[in-house]
Amino acid sequence: MVKMIKRVKKRSKKVGLPPGTLLFTGEKKVEIEKIKVIDFNEEQLEINEYKELKRDLFNKDESIVRWINLDGLSSVDLVENLGKQFHIHPLILEDIMNPEQRPKIEVLKNYLFIVLKMLYLNEETELIQSEQISLIIGSTYIITFREQESKIFDPIIKRLETSRGLIRTEKSDYLGYAILDVILDNYFVIQEKIDEELDLIEEELLENPSSELLGKIRHLEREVITLRRIIRPLREVINSFQREENSIIHDTTRLYLRDLYDHIIQTIDTFENFRDIITTLRESYLSRINQRMNEVINLLTIITSIFIPLSFLAGFYGMNFIYMPEVRQPLAYPIVIMVMISIAVLMLLYFKKKKWI
Amino acid sequence: MVKMIKRVKKRSKKVGLPPGTLLFTGEKKVEIEKIKVIDFNEEQLEINEYKELKRDLFNKDESIVRWINLDGLSSVDLVENLGKQFHIHPLILEDIMNPEQRPKIEVLKNYLFIVLKMLYLNEETELIQSEQISLIIGSTYIITFREQESKIFDPIIKRLETSRGLIRTEKSDYLGYAILDVILDNYFVIQEKIDEELDLIEEELLENPSSELLGKIRHLEREVITLRRIIRPLREVINSFQREENSIIHDTTRLYLRDLYDHIIQTIDTFENFRDIITTLRESYLSRINQRMNEVINLLTIITSIFIPLSFLAGFYGMNFIYMPEVRQPLAYPIVIMVMISIAVLMLLYFKKKKWI
Amino acid sequence: MVKMIKRVKKRSKKVGLPPGTLLFTGEKKVEIEKIKVIDFNEEQLEINEYKELKRDLFNKDESIVRWINLDGLSSVDLVENLGKQFHIHPLILEDIMNPEQRPKIEVLKNYLFIVLKMLYLNEETELIQSEQISLIIGSTYIITFREQESKIFDPIIKRLETSRGLIRTEKSDYLGYAILDVILDNYFVIQEKIDEELDLIEEELLENPSSELLGKIRHLEREVITLRRIIRPLREVINSFQREENSIIHDTTRLYLRDLYDHIIQTIDTFENFRDIITTLRESYLSRINQRMNEVINLLTIITSIFIPLSFLAGFYGMNFIYMPEVRQPLAYPIVIMVMISIAVLMLLYFKKKKWI
Amino acid sequence: MVKMIKRVKKRSKKVGLPPGTLLFTGEKKVEIEKIKVIDFNEEQLEINEYKELKRDLFNKDESIVRWINLDGLSSVDLVENLGKQFHIHPLILEDIMNPEQRPKIEVLKNYLFIVLKMLYLNEETELIQSEQISLIIGSTYIITFREQESKIFDPIIKRLETSRGLIRTEKSDYLGYAILDVILDNYFVIQEKIDEELDLIEEELLENPSSELLGKIRHLEREVITLRRIIRPLREVINSFQREENSIIHDTTRLYLRDLYDHIIQTIDTFENFRDIITTLRESYLSRINQRMNEVINLLTIITSIFIPLSFLAGFYGMNFIYMPEVRQPLAYPIVIMVMISIAVLMLLYFKKKKWI
Amino acid sequence: MVKMIKRVKKRSKKVGLPPGTLLFTGEKKVEIEKIKVIDFNEEQLEINEYKELKRDLFNKDESIVRWINLDGLSSVDLVENLGKQFHIHPLILEDIMNPEQRPKIEVLKNYLFIVLKMLYLNEETELIQSEQISLIIGSTYIITFREQESKIFDPIIKRLETSRGLIRTEKSDYLGYAILDVILDNYFVIQEKIDEELDLIEEELLENPSSELLGKIRHLEREVITLRRIIRPLREVINSFQREENSIIHDTTRLYLRDLYDHIIQTIDTFENFRDIITTLRESYLSRINQRMNEVINLLTIITSIFIPLSFLAGFYGMNFIYMPEVRQPLAYPIVIMVMISIAVLMLLYFKKKKWI
Repeated sequence: MVKMIKRVKKRSKKVGLPPGTLLFTGEKKVEIEKIKVIDFNEEQLEINEYKELKRDLFNKDESIVRWINLDGLSSVDLVENLGKQFHIHPLILEDIMNPEQRPKIEVLKNYLFIVLKMLYLNEETELIQSEQISLIIGSTYIITFREQESKIFDPIIKRLETSRGLIRTEKSDYLGYAILDVILDNYFVIQEKIDEELDLIEEELLENPSSELLGKIRHLEREVITLRRIIRPLREVINSFQREENSIIHDTTRLYLRDLYDHIIQTIDTFENFRDIITTLRESYLSRINQRMNEVINLLTIITSIFIPLSFLAGFYGMNFIYMPEVRQPLAYPIVIMVMISIAVLMLLYFKKKKWI
Repeated sequence: MVKMIKRVKKRSKKVGLPPGTLLFTGEKKVEIEKIKVIDFNEEQLEINEYKELKRDLFNKDESIVRWINLDGLSSVDLVENLGKQFHIHPLILEDIMNPEQRPKIEVLKNYLFIVLKMLYLNEETELIQSEQISLIIGSTYIITFREQESKIFDPIIKRLETSRGLIRTEKSDYLGYAILDVILDNYFVIQEKIDEELDLIEEELLENPSSELLGKIRHLEREVITLRRIIRPLREVINSFQREENSIIHDTTRLYLRDLYDHIIQTIDTFENFRDIITTLRESYLSRINQRMNEVINLLTIITSIFIPLSFLAGFYGMNFIYMPEVRQPLAYPIVIMVMISIAVLMLLYFKKKKWI
Repeated sequence: MVKMIKRVKKRSKKVGLPPGTLLFTGEKKVEIEKIKVIDFNEEQLEINEYKELKRDLFNKDESIVRWINLDGLSSVDLVENLGKQFHIHPLILEDIMNPEQRPKIEVLKNYLFIVLKMLYLNEETELIQSEQISLIIGSTYIITFREQESKIFDPIIKRLETSRGLIRTEKSDYLGYAILDVILDNYFVIQEKIDEELDLIEEELLENPSSELLGKIRHLEREVITLRRIIRPLREVINSFQREENSIIHDTTRLYLRDLYDHIIQTIDTFENFRDIITTLRESYLSRINQRMNEVINLLTIITSIFIPLSFLAGFYGMNFIYMPEVRQPLAYPIVIMVMISIAVLMLLYFKKKKWI
Repeated sequence: MVKMIKRVKKRSKKVGLPPGTLLFTGEKKVEIEKIKVIDFNEEQLEINEYKELKRDLFNKDESIVRWINLDGLSSVDLVENLGKQFHIHPLILEDIMNPEQRPKIEVLKNYLFIVLKMLYLNEETELIQSEQISLIIGSTYIITFREQESKIFDPIIKRLETSRGLIRTEKSDYLGYAILDVILDNYFVIQEKIDEELDLIEEELLENPSSELLGKIRHLEREVITLRRIIRPLREVINSFQREENSIIHDTTRLYLRDLYDHIIQTIDTFENFRDIITTLRESYLSRINQRMNEVINLLTIITSIFIPLSFLAGFYGMNFIYMPEVRQPLAYPIVIMVMISIAVLMLLYFKKKKWI
Repeated sequence: MVKMIKRVKKRSKKVGLPPGTLLFTGEKKVEIEKIKVIDFNEEQLEINEYKELKRDLFNKDESIVRWINLDGLSSVDLVENLGKQFHIHPLILEDIMNPEQRPKIEVLKNYLFIVLKMLYLNEETELIQSEQISLIIGSTYIITFREQESKIFDPIIKRLETSRGLIRTEKSDYLGYAILDVILDNYFVIQEKIDEELDLIEEELLENPSSELLGKIRHLEREVITLRRIIRPLREVINSFQREENSIIHDTTRLYLRDLYDHIIQTIDTFENFRDIITTLRESYLSRINQRMNEVINLLTIITSIFIPLSFLAGFYGMNFIYMPEVRQPLAYPIVIMVMISIAVLMLLYFKKKKWI
C-alpha cells in the first residue's frame, strides 16, 4: 500500500533566533557528507569526490561548467563554508537547511535558487518518500543539495559521461533543466503507483466493500492532498524559472523549460483528477453500504410484518378463557390455519407489488 | 451505454532518458504508416499517397499549400525524418509521439504546434474513443499526425476536391482552422450522445430506481470528468491560436478562429451543465431510495405498534395462573376482543392524524 | 408551475459542412416570414411591412435610422439575401440561424452583432419560454432577427410613434439600447414568477412536506440552472457593448448602457440568490423528512421497549411446566400485574428523562 | 429574534416604459416629504426645513457647503424638480426612486452618485430593517434621499452644530464621507445582534437541540445571506469612491475613505465568518440529532435482542404437545430460568464488549 | 486542549462619534502603561523605561534608530500625546486603540503603519491567545504598541544587546522586519500545537470514537477558522510591505521581507491543510459512527429474523383448540424441534451468504 513517512517538524526550535542562523531542523539521514564535483565542457569531463571541503570550489573558468553535489545536510560548517565561497545569501542557506521549505524560486543577482521535493517510491516498503533538493544555478556552476545520497542523478551523470543529448554542449542552465527534468520524471512513477492503487480499490469495491476499504480510500486521499501541496507550488516555480530575464538562462534552453512547465501542469492536472476519482470512490463505497443497510432493513420489515400478525393470532387462541366458543369447534383449527396462510400470502403479494422483494 | 476505453499509460518508461528522445509510449494501433500529401491552390489539386518517406516533402513553393497527413505513429524513424525535413524541434516531436499529451499550443518562429484530442463514437461498440491529433502549421504547409487512419478528414478533402467554400482560395491558416473545426464539430456528436444517456437515466429514475442506475450515473459522471479534462485546455489553445500575432495567421482567418473559440466555450459550458445535471440526478436517486426506506420503516413501525400490544394482551390471558378470576367470566372473552379492536383502531387513527398512513 | 420547453438540439446535423453554410437547426415556428421596416428621425416616421425581400434595404441616408425586424428564421434565402445587402459575414449569419447560440457580442468593422435570449412567460401554459433574438447594429440601421412574431417590441414602436423619451432624437445605438432594455425588463417578470414559486413551496413545506414537493424543488432548481446559463453570458455581452470604442456608439448612450449593465448584474445576483434559497429549501425539506423518520423510529422503539419485556413475562407464566410453584399462589397474579405496570412506568419515566417523549 | 421585513418587489410594473421614466416602485412610507437644507462653512451654519420645493436650491456659492436631505420618495414631482435644479441625469433619478437598487456608485462629470442600504435594528420589534439611502455629491453640495425620516443623521448634524472634528472646515467630500461612515457604523450594531443570536443558539444547542432550533439556524442563515447581498457590493462602491480622480474629492479626505474601505472589508469578512459559524452550528445540530437517533436504535436493539430469544423459550414451553417430557421434570423449570438468565447476561456482556451500552 | 479566549467586541459604542475619536474599545489588560525607549546604532545602545510621557520622544538624530515600545493601551492621553509628537494621523491612532482591527498596512508619507495579531500559547491554561500589535515605522524610529507586557520582544532586545546578526548595523526597516519575524515565528508554535491536537484526535478516533470527540473536532475547526481570519490578511500586508517603494525600506532589507512573505505563505498553506485534515477527520468519525449503527441494525435484524418465525411456531402449538391432531402425536414434538432448528440454520446460512455475519 502507498504510505508516506511523516516528518518530525520542529520549526519552533528556531523561534527567536536571528534570521540567517543556520540550524538543520530535519532529521540527520547520513553520518558523513559527500561532495561530488563534476567539471565538464564539450571536450572534457572530470569527476572528483571529497568528504571535506578543502579547497575553494568557486569556478572562475567560464569555459567549463562545474556541478557540485552535496549529499547530507547535517553539517552546518560545510554548508556555511560552501555558502561563503559562492557568496550565497545567509537566508538562502537557511532555506537549504530547512527540510520543510515550501518549493520556491528566488532570483538573485548572480544566481538562481530553486528548492523542491523529490518523490520516490521505496520499492521494499512500498512507501512514497519525499526528499528536499535545493539548486543554486550560477552562470558557470550549479550546486545541488540533497538530504542523503540517492540514485536520482545517475542518469544525468551517465549522459554527461557518454555525451548523449545536448548536455555537454550547453551551459549551466541546461544542466539545471536536466536536473529538474529528472526529478519531475520521477513524479510520473508516483502517479502510476497511485493510479494502480485506485484501480485496486475500485475492483475491491465491487467485490467486497469492507470497512477497511474506506480506510484505504481515506488514506490515499490524505496522500494525494499531501502530494498536491508538494507539487502545486512548482507551477509557479517553473513558470518563474522559464520567464526570468537574465544572463544565466539562454534562449535555446527556454523551450526546454516551457516543456518542463507543460509537464508540471499535466502532473497537477492528474492530481486534481485523482481527487475527483477518490471522491467518486468514496461516494461509491457509501452508496454500496447504504444499499446493504436498506436490504437489511427490508428483510427485517418483511419478516416482522408477516410473522407479527400471525403470532398475535396464535397467541389469541392461546388465551385461557373458559368461554371461548371457537376452540371447541372442530373446524376452527383448519380455518385459523387458512387465515394465517392468507395473511402471509397477502403480505407477500403486497411486498411484491411494492417491489420490496 | 457510453463507455471510454482506458489507455495504458507508461510515461515512466521514459524516466532518465534525455529530453527529445523519441519513443512512442502509446499502443501501436496500425501496422503500416500511411503518408498522404495534398498540394493545392486555387487552380490545382494533387493528392499523393506514400508508405515510406522517400523524398523531401518540405514545400518551398509559396503559391501552393501542402498538407501532409501521417496515420500511425509507431515508426520513430519516419517521424524523426519528417521532423528533420521541416526543422521541427525534438521536444515537439516528443510531444507528438506521446499519446497522453495534454492539449496545448506552442508558438515557434516558423510554425505553430497544436495538439488536441479527437473524440468519436464507435457506432458498433457505443464506446466514446479519444485519439490524439497533432498539427504543425507553417506558412506554406500543414502536417497532421494521427494515431491511426480515420474518416474524420474526409469532408475536408471532399471540400478541397469540390472547391466548396473558401478552402482552396485561402492559405494554410484557413486549412488549419478547417481541420480544427471538423474535430470540434465531432464533439457535438458526443454531447448529443451524453444528452441522450442523461434523458434515458432520468426516465428510468422515475420508473425503477434500481441500484444499477446509480452505477450508470456514476459511470457517466466519470466519463464527463474525463471528457472535461480533454476539452477544457482547448479554451486556452484556441484563444492563443486566435490572438497570436505572426505571419502565418491572416486577418481574414481570425474571425473564423473567433468562431471556433466561441464553439469551444459553448462546449465547455455544456459539459459544466452536464455535471450539474448529473449531480441533480444523483440527488434525485438518493432521495427516491431514501423515500422508499422511509416507507419500509413506516410499515414496520405501524405493524409492530399495532400488534405488539395486542400480542401482549393475548399472552397475558395465556398465563397459567390458577387464580385469574377474569378467565372464568363469560363476558371476559368478548370484552378482551373489544379492547383489542379499540387499541388497533386508536393506533390507526393516531397514525392517520400523524399522516404516516 | 414554472416549466421550460426543451428544445430539439441537432447541432450534429452540421458536422462536416463548410463554415458559413446556412442551415436553420431549430424548429420551424412560423410558416411565413414577416419583414418590418421602420424609418425614422426626429421629424418623420415610416413603417412598412413585407412578406418578401424585394428591394435593397440598405440605408444610405445618414439622417434617418432604419430598423428592420425579421420574424421567422426558416427561410435560408431570405436571411442570405439580407446578409448580402448589408455585407454581413457568413459566420454571423450562421450564428443567427442557430437557435442554440450562446449569448455573445461580436464587434466588426461596420457593425456590432449581439445575440441573446428573450424570456417570456406563456400566460396560458405557465411555461417559461426562451427565444433567440439577434441584433445587428450599424451606424444608420438596426436589424433584429426573431424566431417568431411576438409583442415584445410593441412598446418601442409605440414610443417611436408617440415620440416619447429620447428615442426619435437619438441614433441607432440608442435604439439598440432600447431593444436590449425591453428584453432585459422581461427578465424581471420571470424573476417575480420564480420568486412566487419559491414562496409557494416554502408555505407548502411548512404544511405538508410531501415527496412531490421535492420534485418541485428539484424542477425549479433545474429551471434556475438553465436560466442562469442564458443570463450569465450577458454580463460580458453588455459590458463589451458599453466599453466598445467605435463610431457607432455615442457618448450620450454610454450612460444608458451602463444602466443596462447594472440591470444585468442585478439579475445575475438575483439568480445566484435563487440558488441559495433553493439549497436552503431542499435542506429544509430533508430535515423535515428526517425529523419525521426520527419520530417514527422513536415510536417504534418506545412501544417495542415497553411491550417486549411485558410479553416475555406473560409468555413466561404461560409455560406449561408441571412444577411451577408460583402459578398456584393466589397472590402471584396480582403481583405479576404490579410488576408489569412497574416495568411500563419505569420505561416511560426513562424515556421522559431522555426527552424521547 | 432577528427578522427581516420582506419588501414588495414590483419591478415588472416598469416593463415597457421608456428609460428614465420616474415611478416610485417601493411602498409609500411617509405621507409628507420633508426637505432639510443645511448651509455651512467654518464660520456659519444655517438649517432650514421645507415641505415643498419653492426656490432653486442649487448652490453657486463655493465658500459654503449645502447639504439637502429629502425624507420620503413617493412624490415624483419633487424628485424631478430637484433633479432639474441640479442637472441630475434621469437614469440617476430613476435609480433613486427604485428602492430595490443594488448598492453602486456612478461617477458623472459634475457629481458622484452613491446608493446603498442603511441597516437598523427596530428596538421594539427586534427586526432588522433596511432602507435605501442615495447620495449625490457635487463639489459644493450633497443631496441625500431617504425613504423616510430617521435619526441616523442626527449625530452628523450635532457635530455640524458643535463644530466637533473636521466636519465644518472640510468640503462636501468630507461630509459625504461622514454620512457614509455613520451608515456603516450602524452595520456594527447589526453584527453584534447577529453575534448574540449565534451565541444564544449555540447555548441552546448544548441544552436542548429541538427542531425549532434548526428553524432558527436556517432563518438566521437566510438573514445573513440577504445582508451579505446588501453589504458585498459596497466593497466595490467604497473602493471606486476612494480611487476616483476628480475635483470633488480632495487628498486630505482620501485617507478617511481608505479607512471606510477598511471598515467595509472587515464587515464583509465578519459576514463570511457568520456563514462559517452557521454551517458549523447546523452540522453540530445534525450530529446531535443523529447521535440521539443512534441511542434510540441502540436501545431498541438491546431490548429486542435480549427479550426475543427469551420470549421464544417461554413460548416454546407454552406449547401444548402431550408428549413433552421436560415439562414433567421438577428441575426443568429452574433450569429454564437459569438458561434465560444466562442468555440475558451473555447478551449484556456482548453489548458491553461492543461498547454499545 | 486548544481553546481561544473570546473577546468582548463593542464597536457599536463608537457609532456616531466623529472619526479619529480615540476610545479604547478593548478590555483593559494592564493597570499602568509602560514606555520603553531603545536608542541604538552600531556603536552604542541605550535603554530607558518610563511610566509617563514626559519629554518629546521624536528622534531627529538620523545616526541612531529609536525604538519606542508602549505596553497597555487604555490611556487615551498617552497614545494621543505620542501621536502628536510623531505627527501620526488620528485615524491611525484610532486603529491602534481598536483591538479588533483587521491586520493591515497603511503607507503614509513619513511612516508605515502595520497592525497584526500576535498569537501565543498560554502554557498554563493551554489556551491560544491573540493580542494586537501595531507598528509605526519611520525612517529613524519604530513605535510598537502592545495591549500588555509580554516576553515576545525579549530575543530582539537580547540581540540588540549582544549585537548578534545585522540588527545593530541596519536601520529601522530591518528592526521592523525583525519584530515581524519574531511575531510570525510564534505562529509556528501554534501550528505545532494544532498539529499535535490533530494527531491526538486521530489516535482517539481509531480507539474510541465517542461523541465528545466530534465536539473536539468541531471545536478545533472553529479555532482554525478564527486563526485563518487572523493570518490570511497578512499575506497582503507583508506583500505590500515588501513591494513598497519609499525611502524607509532599503534594498538590503527587501530580501529579508521576501523571506517573511515566504513564511506567511507557508503558514497560510498549513492552515488550509489543517482544514482539509479536519474535514477528513470529521468524515472519518461519521463513517465510524455509521458503521457502528449498521452493525447494531444488523444484529437487530439477524436476531429478529431468526426468532420471530420460531416464536410464531411455538405460539402456534400453544393454541388451545380442542381438535389439534398434531399435539397428540408422540413424534410431533421432536419434529417441531427439528423444524425450528432447520429454520434457524437456514436463516444463518442465508445471512452468511449475504455476508451480513
